[in-house]
Amino acid sequence: MKRAAVVLVSGGLDSATTLAIARAQGFACHGLTFDYGQRHVVELRAAQAVCRSLHIAPPRVLKLDLRAIGGSALTADIAVPKDRHAREGHDVPVTYVPARNTVFLACALGYAEVLGAADIFLGVNAVDYSGYPDCRPGFVAAFEALANLATRAGVEGSHLRVHAPLMHLSKGQIIRQGVALGVDYSLTHSCYDPVGELACGHCDSCRIRAAGFAEAGVPDPTRYAKA
Amino acid sequence: MKRAAVVLVSGGLDSATTLAIARAQGFACHGLTFDYGQRHVVELRAAQAVCRSLHIAPPRVLKLDLRAIGGSALTADIAVPKDRHAREGHDVPVTYVPARNTVFLACALGYAEVLGAADIFLGVNAVDYSGYPDCRPGFVAAFEALANLATRAGVEGSHLRVHAPLMHLSKGQIIRQGVALGVDYSLTHSCYDPVGELACGHCDSCRIRAAGFAEAGVPDPTRYAKA
Repeated sequence: MKRAAVVLVSGGLDSATTLAIARAQGFACHGLTFDYGQRHVVELRAAQAVCRSLHIAPPRVLKLDLRAIGGSALTADIAVPKDRHAREGHDVPVTYVPARNTVFLACALGYAEVLGAADIFLGVNAVDYSGYPDCRPGFVAAFEALANLATRAGVEGSHLRVHAPLMHLSKGQIIRQGVALGVDYSLTHSCYDPVGELACGHCDSCRIRAAGFAEAGVPDPTRYAKA
Repeated sequence: MKRAAVVLVSGGLDSATTLAIARAQGFACHGLTFDYGQRHVVELRAAQAVCRSLHIAPPRVLKLDLRAIGGSALTADIAVPKDRHAREGHDVPVTYVPARNTVFLACALGYAEVLGAADIFLGVNAVDYSGYPDCRPGFVAAFEALANLATRAGVEGSHLRVHAPLMHLSKGQIIRQGVALGVDYSLTHSCYDPVGELACGHCDSCRIRAAGFAEAGVPDPTRYAKA
């Protein structure tokens, strides 16, 4: 029998690729996604479409209203910055959602316990990223250490693993790997500030994504809003 | 100006005492509580009453539907065990909510970031507890390590602390400390399976609580349902 894994899926390019990698490694994948009051709720539909196209059951959707604590351009009434230079300085951008990956991994850990799964996948990346603190290798290692103290598994002696297979890949490398594994990137959604279902083309996420397709030499299937 | 702290409050005896301790240490306390689909939603009203009696603003309530992942007698359709011997063997009981404290601390971390607070308090206890893995000292230390990698604070060089002032106290010691700090335990709610607002008197939580009042030599103000 295949081993079960929980895969955090957002509907974006990175998590779609991560899901395809987990599946290719032979895991029975259980997607988990969040309805957290984000501006880009179109993500949820994308997460479902990505799972369907990879023949994986629809992701479990966990409601968590992070607007109750606010503090980010993605969940509060703060403008999403446009056309800034990628990785400008070392500051954390306003699109950072406080402790988001910590919260998402904590919920994934709970779901893994319920399923009896010892593996969690997430699509964080330390190369072409937006400067978020919770996308770094040390963060993932620290969460894995925590997970093994926090759970029945820790008590009962099995070992939980947190996989971040994209960590050291460039966006172009991620896209080439995903294409090889059959990911249909036209189904994915990355924009922080979409116009209906169309990408804005100017936020950090759109800019990093577009540069990735250019680097990979793969036609960009993203549908952009007119400028 | 007082330093801000986030205090996880559940409406129970331990978190009420923790809140009184944080206040006595001079922190400006910001309560955070969860509506997570628990059976004992009467907890939420207790959390508000406890804050009011300690002259602290009502807690922020975060909705998080853990029923979407299930797996616990507190959130799924599994019976709450009654009259079992406290700390029977070393097994994790069915009232354990998978990864609950990890999820709660992750959300507290996000709220702390929004507030600019560097201190988080939670009322876990490793002495008179129900055998939950996420109530142990190593868990709290691992979360603090994670917190300092997960956040802006970690990037910007300040240090986040996770305080668990009850960790090494017996239930009787907790109650004596709370009484000294003015906690009104009649406002708190501990029962996992209440009858209306009345405690069942037979679940692990009721039994540990009753033994604590006996140990402390303090009259038990709990209102119990008739057997």
